[in-house]
Order: sequence, then structure tokens, then C-alpha cells
Amino acid sequence: MASIKQQMMEIGRNARAASRELGAAAATVRQAAIEGMAANLAAAHDAVMAANEDDLRAAAAAHADQAFLKRLQITEKIFAYMVDRLREAARLPDPLGIVLEGHTEPSGLEVSRVSVPLGVIGIIYEARPNVTTDAAAVALKSGNAVILRGGSEAWRSNALLVSLMQDAIAAQGLPANAVQMPSCPDRQAVRELLRLDRYVDVIIPRGGKELIRAVSSQSRIPVIKHYDGICHLYLAADADPAMAVALTVNSKCQRVEVCNALETLLIDRAGAKTLLPAIARALQDKGVELRGCARCRRILPELKPAVPADWDTEYLDAILAIRVVDGLDAAIAHINRHGSGHTDGIVTRDLQAAKLFLERVDSASVLVNASTRLSGGGDYGMGAVVGISTGRLHARGPVGPRELTTYKWQVRGNGQLRY
Amino acid sequence: MASIKQQMMEIGRNARAASRELGAAAATVRQAAIEGMAANLAAAHDAVMAANEDDLRAAAAAHADQAFLKRLQITEKIFAYMVDRLREAARLPDPLGIVLEGHTEPSGLEVSRVSVPLGVIGIIYEARPNVTTDAAAVALKSGNAVILRGGSEAWRSNALLVSLMQDAIAAQGLPANAVQMPSCPDRQAVRELLRLDRYVDVIIPRGGKELIRAVSSQSRIPVIKHYDGICHLYLAADADPAMAVALTVNSKCQRVEVCNALETLLIDRAGAKTLLPAIARALQDKGVELRGCARCRRILPELKPAVPADWDTEYLDAILAIRVVDGLDAAIAHINRHGSGHTDGIVTRDLQAAKLFLERVDSASVLVNASTRLSGGGDYGMGAVVGISTGRLHARGPVGPRELTTYKWQVRGNGQLRY
Repeated sequence: MASIKQQMMEIGRNARAASRELGAAAATVRQAAIEGMAANLAAAHDAVMAANEDDLRAAAAAHADQAFLKRLQITEKIFAYMVDRLREAARLPDPLGIVLEGHTEPSGLEVSRVSVPLGVIGIIYEARPNVTTDAAAVALKSGNAVILRGGSEAWRSNALLVSLMQDAIAAQGLPANAVQMPSCPDRQAVRELLRLDRYVDVIIPRGGKELIRAVSSQSRIPVIKHYDGICHLYLAADADPAMAVALTVNSKCQRVEVCNALETLLIDRAGAKTLLPAIARALQDKGVELRGCARCRRILPELKPAVPADWDTEYLDAILAIRVVDGLDAAIAHINRHGSGHTDGIVTRDLQAAKLFLERVDSASVLVNASTRLSGGGDYGMGAVVGISTGRLHARGPVGPRELTTYKWQVRGNGQLRY
Repeated sequence: MASIKQQMMEIGRNARAASRELGAAAATVRQAAIEGMAANLAAAHDAVMAANEDDLRAAAAAHADQAFLKRLQITEKIFAYMVDRLREAARLPDPLGIVLEGHTEPSGLEVSRVSVPLGVIGIIYEARPNVTTDAAAVALKSGNAVILRGGSEAWRSNALLVSLMQDAIAAQGLPANAVQMPSCPDRQAVRELLRLDRYVDVIIPRGGKELIRAVSSQSRIPVIKHYDGICHLYLAADADPAMAVALTVNSKCQRVEVCNALETLLIDRAGAKTLLPAIARALQDKGVELRGCARCRRILPELKPAVPADWDTEYLDAILAIRVVDGLDAAIAHINRHGSGHTDGIVTRDLQAAKLFLERVDSASVLVNASTRLSGGGDYGMGAVVGISTGRLHARGPVGPRELTTYKWQVRGNGQLRY
């Protein structure tokens, strides 16, 4: 058997070759391949569930905890979601060959900038097998080849999913190597993948901070990072009280363990007395632990005191820090200092406050009168995404098919020279 | 005196603070600051020339070679160019606050993506002092703060240029720290700059391959790279002979030492007998050394033979490799294999050949019937640029003000929740 290093080189070379064919394939053919992936997956329901059962049994035998097993499991709901996401990706508008801009220079040179695939994407992820189909769909939609390196515990599920997708791709006359995974879960494969800068154009790690830090520090390939979400909601004094309660509860409680869940609530001091008691009650009814600043605790003395570290913590849990601030500027300053630039919102009825918040808060998503939980991409109309970028270069916020494209300059002349 | 490390931390912190103010400043104010930079520079002509004289004298005393001294010198022509570039940058359309796309979701959520500054840019460069003003203009135009680390030999010139620009910026009420450079040319400043990932969003190295490689391997901050230009021109058999000669000569000879100069000429075998002799004569008249493949040498036996390494060499000199190929597909395959994805062109009268070349050649700039020397950005209407990216992420090809922006998602709702 070839060494892991040789195998990964081979996978990289194959991916590069496949990416050239994909980039030249018609949108209708790529779309048919993704539809075929959905059909193959739906038809293989029982086999996928059985493979996932095997993964779950092995993980349980290895004493994986309940949260881990939950992430690993393909429930009926998740299975249906995987099929739906593939169908949805097939239907999305094609992101390639779009003339992003174009004009004729005074010299007569016709200059245009046209979207093209990035090339080869490497995805390194942990337990969730739905990333396998989501990432392949997003990559293929944008004409990219993808190398998938999922968690070892999901290996049987992922291997079956990849082979079903490869069959659908080949059935359209496209290269099956458009979607590949290593042949075994050896950890060395990750290290080798991160060195394939000759063949791989971008690495997207999906998982905990440790994974992302390890990948970033080792990679010779540019990395699109998905770090912390320390998300804020600022309630202005004029916020509609019912809306303030509903948005706070939804932002915090709809799912506590995700990156765009609310971690710190800021309330204008002029509205704190009215808003805070109702919000605290609603959150406590949902079992959320509240940690308040000194001014919060003057209104609700029973709150646990917040310490400075709370303003910089991503709980990913049923805990919320609450701080009373002196108006809009103080709220913006707090967010730009303590936030992670992920998702931050304001609740207000004031046009100027909304405008300033949207302009001054330096985050990937800034929202007015909407739940922070809406920044995942689906609610922006993006369909399947492979992650949410917290970096500023290339992609910021949700990473869908369009974010996996780059562009080329196409220039048409009739003999123009440089003088 | 503070340590270099402390000084660079201070510079980083100041740049971050300045970037927040710049991002919030009106376009008219940033424009006035750049116009002021041009006016200050024009008014300080004699002082700038004197500082540059001092740099040149010191470099000559240290036995710098002629090519180096040439790069270091601010000639009258370069001085005029520096002033013009600043004025031109001031006049360019503002790249900030552009709604890149926008729509209303079925939920009623109004979603838009708006251009914003990247934040803080670090530029590491070698001798040419005109980079100091070009880079500052491009950065300020796009609302970014910039940290300039030029070559030690240009220190007196650069220090004066930076102080003239800071005065102009402060005169508009903007933070002078929008443009900074270290206080002394200690090499440690570069290493410290590359570690300021907390304050600096992107590093752009400008200079030789060694500089770029060293910066890329040390940097904790994303790098926009500017590597080799192994640029090609492919002459189809139906190419207009006069245009083929003119474009080849201009692409190769207009300036031989730059990244978008021609390095390899490909000629369709069906046109080689007609085209090659005239082109060889024109190039030899300009003193270009030609290295031909075996099929070239059957037509012109006096040519020096090309060896395989020639196809992968960026000469940056008066040397050209020439290869006869079997038509369009072979030309595209050669370019995608041996090229560096920088700038490649075709000369043809055939619509379908032009279309296929534009689609299939995977380079930042692909041109039909135009000189490769046109891909620097100015001839695309971009004005001042800080470099030409050979990477695929974020910016591809010329890097102007627009390429130093990112975006944020602005979302306006009326209470939307996630279910």
C-alpha cells in the first residue's frame, strides 16, 4: 500500500485534474450531478442508516459522550435535511461565469471581471456527517473539486456518502474525483493535506477552536477560519418591549451551542428598568443563567454578578451576560471591543440609531430588529453553506457557493500596446 | 527608548484606532486628505529630492549596484508620477459603502452586503520610494490605516514622504496615524509586524521572491502574495502577422524586468513558418536572446536551443523562450502547466478560439489581441495599485482600493425570529 503521503499527493493531483474539468463543465451538467447526489442519497436511505448505526455502536463502545453521539447520529430529520440541502443547492443560481463588472477603456480595451471556481477545497471537520453532503454540494455548485477529511468516528457513514456522490457525478460524465476522501482515518492524512499547497487552494476547518487553531498554525494553504461568535444584542431605550423580549429569547435560546447564539445582552440605561425585569423572567423561564453588571443588579439584586471575563466569553451554553450601558455609543464601543465580529444586533425604533449601529459595528453581520440566529446564511437566501467566516479576507460571514469562487480578468483588444 | 517590540505594538494599536475613525469618515474628507498629500508632496519638491540624494549617497558609499541605485532614485519623472498618482487616487470613485447586492427575503428580512475597509494593511517593500505614496493613497482611498516598512536604504526619503502625508491627513481632522512607519530601519521591526495579528488584517510584501517567501513563512497575518509572472502569448495560425509582431515585441520589450513581461511565446505549428521569421527578426533587432524548441530550430536553425527548464523560467531579462505547439488545446495545456497564472494572451481572428482561450486559461488576466504589459491595473482603469496578486483568494490580479475592502452583511427586520 502506498504511504499516506503518497496517497494524499495522489488525491491532490486527482482533485486538481478534476477541478479543471469541472470549471469547464456546463452549469446544467453540474446541476444534474447534484440532483443525482440527492436521488442516490434518498435511494440509499437504509444503507446510510445502517452505516451510521455501525459508527454509533463503535463510538459508544469507545465511550464517546452523549453530546458527541448526538452530533454523530444521522436522525431521520437530519437525513431528510441532507437530501433537501442537496436539492436546494442544485436549484440555486449558478455562481460561475458571472460578469462582476465590465467596461470599455478609452483605449478600446474591453475589460471584464468574471467569476470562476477557486479550484480545490480541502474541508477538515469533526463528527457531523451532514457536513459531507453539504460541503460537496457547495463545492460542486461552484465548480470546485473537494477533499473531505471528516472525523474518524464517522468514517463508515462518510465513506458511503462519498461513494454515493461519486456515482452521481460520474453518471453525468464528470470526474468522480471531484469529491474524494482519504482511504483511512490516519491522522497523518490531515498533516499531509495541509502541505498540498501545490494542489489545494483553500482549507476550511469546521469544528472546535482547537481544531481550527491547529489547522491554521500547520497549514501552508490559506485557511478560511470559523472562530468564536461572541454575539450581542443592544436594546435601545425605545425598543418595543415585546419585540425586545422575543428577539432576546430567540437569539439566546433557539439553540445555545451555536456560534450565532447570543452571549451578551446590552441594555440602554434609560430603558433598563422597564425592559430588564420582563426579559430576565422570560429567560429564567427557559432555564438561562443570567450574569448581570452592577447596574443590572441594582434593578434585579438576585442576579449573579458578572465579572470582567464574562464580556469576553463565548458560553455556547444556557448562560447570558447582561450589561447596562450609557446609550448607543457605549454599546457600539463595547461590541467593537469585546465582540468577535461575528453577529451583532440592535433593537430600536429610531432610524438614526439603526443607521449608526449598522455603520459603526464592525462585524460580519449587523442586524436591526432581528434575531442573531438568522446570520447562518440560509435566512439570507444562500442555501447550503460550508461555514461562517470570522476572517476579513475573501469571505466574511456565511460561506456558500459564491464565496468559493474567485475571478479572472478577461480583456479583449484589437492590438493595444503599452507605451 | 522603548524596545522595537513595544514600538511595533504601539504602532499596531494606533493603526487599529485610526482605522476605526477612517472607516467612519466621509468620502469627501478622505478624498481631501489624499489631495492634500499630493499638494504637500508637490510643495516639498526640493526637500524630497535632497532627502533622496542623501539616501543615494549613502547607498553608493555602501557599494550598492547600479540597478539598485536606479530603483532607489526619485527622478523628476518619478516625482511627477508620484504626485499624479496621488491626485488620480483622490479622483477615483469611492470604494466604500457600495451595496454589492441586496434583496428582501420572503420573511420580510431586508438583506444587503455593503463594502467596508479591510482595516489595517501592512506593506513590506524594498527600494522604490514611490511605493510609499502609492500604497498610502490606495489604503486611505479605501478607508484603511497602513503601516509602511520600506527598505532601509530609502529611509530618509520615506520618512519625509510619510511626514508630509501625515500633515495632510491631520489637516482634514483625520488621525495622522492612518499612515505610519517604524522609527528606525531595524530588521526586527519586520518580524514584529508579522506577529501583530491582533492589529493588522493583511500583509502585502512587494519585492523579490526571497522577500515574499520569507514574509509568507513567518507571518501570522494573511498575506496577499505577488509571485512570479511566467507570461505567455499564443499566436494562432490565423493571427494578423503585423499585430502578432507588434504585440510580441511590446509584451517582451516594453520593460523586460517586470512581472507581466512576456517570457514564453507559443506559435501554432500551422502558422510558424510565416510568423516566426518576422518575429525573430524584430526581437533580435531589439537585442532579445531567443531560445527555440526543436521545431522552431527547423525553421530558424541559428536559434539557441530551449531546454525543458526554459518553459518554467521567469527571465525578467531580454530573453524569450519560443515553442511551436499543435494548436489551441496544446497551447492552453502548456500555459496551465508551465505558467504562473499571472497574465496570458492569444493573438487570433477566430471568435471560438478567443472564447475557449478566455475560458480555459486559468490565469488572473487573460487577453485577446492585447499586450501582456496591460495587466498592471492602470490600463484596466484602476488607478494606483499596491501590487498584483498571484493568489486566488480575496484579490486576483491588480490590487487597488477596491481590493483592500471587505464587506459586511447589513440586515433590517421587524422582529424576525429563527424557528
